[in-house]
Amino acid sequence: MKAKVSIIMGSTSDLPVMEKAAKLLNEFQIPFELNALSAHRTPDEVADFAKNAEDRGIEIIIAGAGMAAHLPGVIAAMTTLPVIGVPINATFDGMDALLAIVQMPPGIPVATVGVGAAQNAAILAIQILALSDKTLNEKFTAYKQGLKQKITKANEDLKEMAQYEYRV
Amino acid sequence: MKAKVSIIMGSTSDLPVMEKAAKLLNEFQIPFELNALSAHRTPDEVADFAKNAEDRGIEIIIAGAGMAAHLPGVIAAMTTLPVIGVPINATFDGMDALLAIVQMPPGIPVATVGVGAAQNAAILAIQILALSDKTLNEKFTAYKQGLKQKITKANEDLKEMAQYEYRV
Amino acid sequence: MKAKVSIIMGSTSDLPVMEKAAKLLNEFQIPFELNALSAHRTPDEVADFAKNAEDRGIEIIIAGAGMAAHLPGVIAAMTTLPVIGVPINATFDGMDALLAIVQMPPGIPVATVGVGAAQNAAILAIQILALSDKTLNEKFTAYKQGLKQKITKANEDLKEMAQYEYRV
Amino acid sequence: MKAKVSIIMGSTSDLPVMEKAAKLLNEFQIPFELNALSAHRTPDEVADFAKNAEDRGIEIIIAGAGMAAHLPGVIAAMTTLPVIGVPINATFDGMDALLAIVQMPPGIPVATVGVGAAQNAAILAIQILALSDKTLNEKFTAYKQGLKQKITKANEDLKEMAQYEYRV
Amino acid sequence: MKAKVSIIMGSTSDLPVMEKAAKLLNEFQIPFELNALSAHRTPDEVADFAKNAEDRGIEIIIAGAGMAAHLPGVIAAMTTLPVIGVPINATFDGMDALLAIVQMPPGIPVATVGVGAAQNAAILAIQILALSDKTLNEKFTAYKQGLKQKITKANEDLKEMAQYEYRV
Amino acid sequence: MKAKVSIIMGSTSDLPVMEKAAKLLNEFQIPFELNALSAHRTPDEVADFAKNAEDRGIEIIIAGAGMAAHLPGVIAAMTTLPVIGVPINATFDGMDALLAIVQMPPGIPVATVGVGAAQNAAILAIQILALSDKTLNEKFTAYKQGLKQKITKANEDLKEMAQYEYRV
Amino acid sequence: MKAKVSIIMGSTSDLPVMEKAAKLLNEFQIPFELNALSAHRTPDEVADFAKNAEDRGIEIIIAGAGMAAHLPGVIAAMTTLPVIGVPINATFDGMDALLAIVQMPPGIPVATVGVGAAQNAAILAIQILALSDKTLNEKFTAYKQGLKQKITKANEDLKEMAQYEYRV
Amino acid sequence: MKAKVSIIMGSTSDLPVMEKAAKLLNEFQIPFELNALSAHRTPDEVADFAKNAEDRGIEIIIAGAGMAAHLPGVIAAMTTLPVIGVPINATFDGMDALLAIVQMPPGIPVATVGVGAAQNAAILAIQILALSDKTLNEKFTAYKQGLKQKITKANEDLKEMAQYEYRV
Repeated sequence: MKAKVSIIMGSTSDLPVMEKAAKLLNEFQIPFELNALSAHRTPDEVADFAKNAEDRGIEIIIAGAGMAAHLPGVIAAMTTLPVIGVPINATFDGMDALLAIVQMPPGIPVATVGVGAAQNAAILAIQILALSDKTLNEKFTAYKQGLKQKITKANEDLKEMAQYEYRV
Repeated sequence: MKAKVSIIMGSTSDLPVMEKAAKLLNEFQIPFELNALSAHRTPDEVADFAKNAEDRGIEIIIAGAGMAAHLPGVIAAMTTLPVIGVPINATFDGMDALLAIVQMPPGIPVATVGVGAAQNAAILAIQILALSDKTLNEKFTAYKQGLKQKITKANEDLKEMAQYEYRV
Repeated sequence: MKAKVSIIMGSTSDLPVMEKAAKLLNEFQIPFELNALSAHRTPDEVADFAKNAEDRGIEIIIAGAGMAAHLPGVIAAMTTLPVIGVPINATFDGMDALLAIVQMPPGIPVATVGVGAAQNAAILAIQILALSDKTLNEKFTAYKQGLKQKITKANEDLKEMAQYEYRV
Repeated sequence: MKAKVSIIMGSTSDLPVMEKAAKLLNEFQIPFELNALSAHRTPDEVADFAKNAEDRGIEIIIAGAGMAAHLPGVIAAMTTLPVIGVPINATFDGMDALLAIVQMPPGIPVATVGVGAAQNAAILAIQILALSDKTLNEKFTAYKQGLKQKITKANEDLKEMAQYEYRV
Repeated sequence: MKAKVSIIMGSTSDLPVMEKAAKLLNEFQIPFELNALSAHRTPDEVADFAKNAEDRGIEIIIAGAGMAAHLPGVIAAMTTLPVIGVPINATFDGMDALLAIVQMPPGIPVATVGVGAAQNAAILAIQILALSDKTLNEKFTAYKQGLKQKITKANEDLKEMAQYEYRV
Repeated sequence: MKAKVSIIMGSTSDLPVMEKAAKLLNEFQIPFELNALSAHRTPDEVADFAKNAEDRGIEIIIAGAGMAAHLPGVIAAMTTLPVIGVPINATFDGMDALLAIVQMPPGIPVATVGVGAAQNAAILAIQILALSDKTLNEKFTAYKQGLKQKITKANEDLKEMAQYEYRV
Repeated sequence: MKAKVSIIMGSTSDLPVMEKAAKLLNEFQIPFELNALSAHRTPDEVADFAKNAEDRGIEIIIAGAGMAAHLPGVIAAMTTLPVIGVPINATFDGMDALLAIVQMPPGIPVATVGVGAAQNAAILAIQILALSDKTLNEKFTAYKQGLKQKITKANEDLKEMAQYEYRV
Repeated sequence: MKAKVSIIMGSTSDLPVMEKAAKLLNEFQIPFELNALSAHRTPDEVADFAKNAEDRGIEIIIAGAGMAAHLPGVIAAMTTLPVIGVPINATFDGMDALLAIVQMPPGIPVATVGVGAAQNAAILAIQILALSDKTLNEKFTAYKQGLKQKITKANEDLKEMAQYEYRV
């Protein structure tokens, strides 16, 4: 089994956030790998990682980082694979990480998701992989249908909650 | 009894905030309904909701949402009824939700209240309904008088609190 | 002819913004008035204005202000009529005015629209008046249909613009 | 004993912040009063308060408020006395209150202190009163000397804390 | 020729920004389409667009919008295709658009690029398409090499510019 | 003639802003002085200035500064006179200067006015001086009355401007 | 033993943050001193400190402060030694302190590190001292190598954590 | 002549800002070099640059960058030399660049100066070099004295400007 998606984070303290991506990829039976490498403390290892990812069969990289969050952009600079960036909140509600990830210069984009939104990063990866994988596309369509049903169910539940005389 | 005001939220987790609107409408004996529908997870249901609201007798819609809070604007796009938007704080102290609700383009306004201010959304709805409902207008005038008295009472209480030698 | 909507601004320098509301109300043949009164320089006149608005037949007040924008909230405090607030950009891209208008305390809402969005304030007023005015409701429905057609037309125009070999 | 300084807040929930001003005025034996009046819920009472303050012998008004913090500006509009504004943090770390207080239009200033800095508001009041009160001026000079000594003492204490081999 | 990428914007006024994406896709000989549809003014057309995109052979949607920028998220809600969002600056330096696009709730991501960065959106689309298109992958690798050479050339040019005695 | 108010700025480039204070003080016939001294480039001169101000008969100091605006706070640290701070916009719309002036630590307040609001700083100085100067108090009361009349006049003018068929 | 680095903070309450600098300097066997002096409460002592630092053999000053954080800039104004500023979070997530430290005017820089990043301030000091101290340079190179190994180790640990069926 | 300071920028469009550093270093007769290399477009060249800088005799690196400004941090990760970062304003008034530079993780500091403050970066470099260069130290002391005299001169000039009857 070869990993198709590589999840990378700047430190293991980011695992609680980034694991949400791992869980979802696992649920979709997409082989993935998990790495902790720092753009600042292990720049050479990050360069090796980024440059070899494609040859190792990786198709998408999900990179999470906080503060002056350079990891996603640094990786994007050294691969032609699409890189999805997850800003992680350490200070400023994650605004520093968001801006340091999303505001990339012309030529080197990072596909940025919301602060802490590692699950959404995984969904984006699934959407991309599903473009050339019919089965995955069907699974994802079903997943999206499931989200809808959860809300519809929640709407039902709401009928029991919050009882008021003038509630119709 | 037909609902005049429809309270809608993106998920049941918004209920603690949005229930403040329900409580006040109930206190004013205004029939209302409570719904949980997501602009993103159940877009068709939201479209149905928005398009049929007027025919179902709804006069005002109060919609609460957090983060990239599209629900109020999406509903406003599909109805001619006034829509009141309640930004809910999930991150950035609710600034993301506030901007995503209040900064609507020309043609499709959302009447926005403060972050988490669902009670004020209900008051706004009451003020609008009271324009053509004399009894309600009187009730609301009394309510506003009551707010004043609470403050006047608080000012009295303050006399007992915070005792200082040089306090006059 | 008695005004149904009162547009008020803190100074005549706000007229270029607030006139967008006047234009639209005029287009919808809704009688309105225009006032320049300052919450800070003419507080007594503002109090008179706010307290007498309902008796003069006003149904909705649209108030625009910039910087520490108190005018909408100060008026809302002294009337039971719905007040629509228009933040006007003087500094901070209008963020100071937006926060000073939208963040009203419990009990005294201001229905806030986007920075400089006086046209949307007028639309909101029309939506509220249309609740008890069938003809206006039809006119507004047609107006909204018109917005749609402008976009559909723009989409047509776009076909002529931006010619590229690989554009389909 | 007639109050020279009037401390006013929008609600008794602001007392924990505003009491810091009371404590310091008391310490300086300056007669003061404490009021809770809301610019939005009791506008007439606030107007009475502001217009009569000078006649009642008040020389300086310290007004604290949060969110769309209109109280200091509304009072400043109706008195010629200097008004000191204290932004109180309810949301956005108090940024909304700060901007709603400090960004007053030309003609009606509010002397603004930092978020929650009611103690500094009292000091400012003392500095102003000391301009025409020699004894108070001396007391304040001594107080400021005391602040210095506290820091000098802290610097001494620091010698005992944080022991390190290479600390000189 | 069937479009693989669909570029959509909320109004033709966004064309100067969004055309940067068109130019690059054209340069890469990737068939694309250009649309102007508004999430707020033409919600039904946007729904049709989003729901049929996949069946029409579209693989990636690039959506640009300003202010309360709902278009990318609204489309993402109604398709399983990856959606790339381009925040467009209208006010607040584009911060409102950025937050309204990137802060999507769990389940419905939008791959967000920097404010005004439509060219980067096109690159992201190319990176995704290149995953299953070897020729495109090679072209993109060459393009990235070209970026490098431009900088290397600029570095050469810099040698001529900015002459100083102590410049080595 | 001895100066009662001292206006000080960090550089002569701040004169266009700070001169608004000079003009108003002149209009009120209050003797004042104008200085350009930098907290960072001439710290000793600033210290001399601050420490001797009281002895030279100065009663109030108005200090304007931009960016990391230390001047007002540094002066406040070395005098018992009230210091009024004027944030001047150089970058960030003046937010850096505002925060660097208003957020003073306990014990050393700066009475902060809005960004660029030097005129309001002068008014605050006048209000303070008027506490012990009956004539000035009367002049200021008249001035404030004049502000009101200007608005009332503007409201009259507005009647001529912005003619619409449905304007009442 | 003469101190080479002087760590200074505005109050002992900043010790928990600033001690991170002390710890690291100690680990590198660099003699340092620790002081608590306030730019606002003990301006003369700060002036003495800054003016005499060089003569006392100090080579680098690390100054931490919060809120309207003037201490680093005030010291930089009175010494030719490099000053490293550490913004400390008291409010606004430390944004006020960051701007009050980093936005120094031309001529008087403060080398600013991240909010609360006293450890990084010490590293910067070490990097500067290492320019003329070969042994220290080697020690620092080893330290940097150690950071790398910690991450590499963490990456190993990660293999044990977060077990998933589809994790490769 | 071997360069002691290396100025590096992400693109030649940053030259107008970064040249302010070059000018000052030239004035101080400090040999320097100027480079344009992009962390994102030429990552390998940046790595070579950073890793070899020390061996080439460079003592300090001044790196300027805008938007998601990774260049200073990426260089700091690969050298033990002190790196001074200059945030350059492209959007958000440079706030994105400031946060992306200053908020570096523990272990890898960047000595950050204000937005666009390349001249201050050069001064910082001079201060560092002066630690082990007596002549430079004297020159810098004279330079700082000169700054003071410019302000003192400006203060003289101010006497001629802004003439008012009540100016003392």
